[in-house]
Amino acid sequence: MIENTTLCYAELDGKWLMLHRTKKKQDINEGKWIGIGGHVEEGESPEDCIRREMLEETGLIAGTLSFRGVITFVYRDVTEYMFLFTAEDLSDTDGRDITTDSPLPECSEGEPAWIRKEDVFSLPIWEGDRYFLKLLCEGAPFFSLKLVYDDNGNLLDAITGDGSTLYHQ
Amino acid sequence: MIENTTLCYAELDGKWLMLHRTKKKQDINEGKWIGIGGHVEEGESPEDCIRREMLEETGLIAGTLSFRGVITFVYRDVTEYMFLFTAEDLSDTDGRDITTDSPLPECSEGEPAWIRKEDVFSLPIWEGDRYFLKLLCEGAPFFSLKLVYDDNGNLLDAITGDGSTLYHQ
Repeated sequence: MIENTTLCYAELDGKWLMLHRTKKKQDINEGKWIGIGGHVEEGESPEDCIRREMLEETGLIAGTLSFRGVITFVYRDVTEYMFLFTAEDLSDTDGRDITTDSPLPECSEGEPAWIRKEDVFSLPIWEGDRYFLKLLCEGAPFFSLKLVYDDNGNLLDAITGDGSTLYHQ
Repeated sequence: MIENTTLCYAELDGKWLMLHRTKKKQDINEGKWIGIGGHVEEGESPEDCIRREMLEETGLIAGTLSFRGVITFVYRDVTEYMFLFTAEDLSDTDGRDITTDSPLPECSEGEPAWIRKEDVFSLPIWEGDRYFLKLLCEGAPFFSLKLVYDDNGNLLDAITGDGSTLYHQ
């Protein structure tokens, strides 16, 4: 089964807007901290999708979107292609600028919070996410990364587009 | 229906390796000139896919692959996400370097030929391809482009990832 998704880390004052996935039933991400995103719908570009997801999940609009990478996740019977973005210059639907002190709206997918980038790595996150979050932190140019997991959610391989192995179990 | 594909333009001496699609039955690309590529298979990263397709279609191995863009095609009931590459430093399966004078292998998809980049634009190509081929020619950094076609294969819209309209019918 092939799936296409988007994921976005909105950036502000050295922090990322993340969701603590505690709300959704049968959520593969349950308990994990993750950015904002979801499945691509027919007719949508990756940017169309992530703008819709940000609006639906947080009520926010991104002034600037940066397409940072394509992540290929292989797990169970799924191959998922995830279009990875960062976003800046956030506003609400009334055009008001958002700060990290602005009240965050209710989100059906999880509890939103602004997390210092350096603190993200000590939260419960997917093992493979560390590799692309590190690349985002370092300001890496566009990258492609393949993450292979076993059936229990343990990372087996992290391989960059040029064939370099970042991790192998 | 959502489909994922790859497309690659192998570069050598200012020329691109292209296929004149004259062979495949019921080929949506019939008569058109296009790069090398095909559908992504389960478990494949975009790079895995394009390396397999290049080998299957031309017997060539790319020493260097550059991930240049993601193209979202919307046509009929299909939304296709195409991972766009250029390739350099080509060799055959015996490790011999390839030049534009090397004999090109038979290809079941079409007739391969090395085409000067500036000549590509006067060949029969998809209208929307002009926009990403121009970006490739200009050495543009990674880009995202959405191309919307009507049921007769006429381009309706070409929109970049930052929302700029390059073409609107």
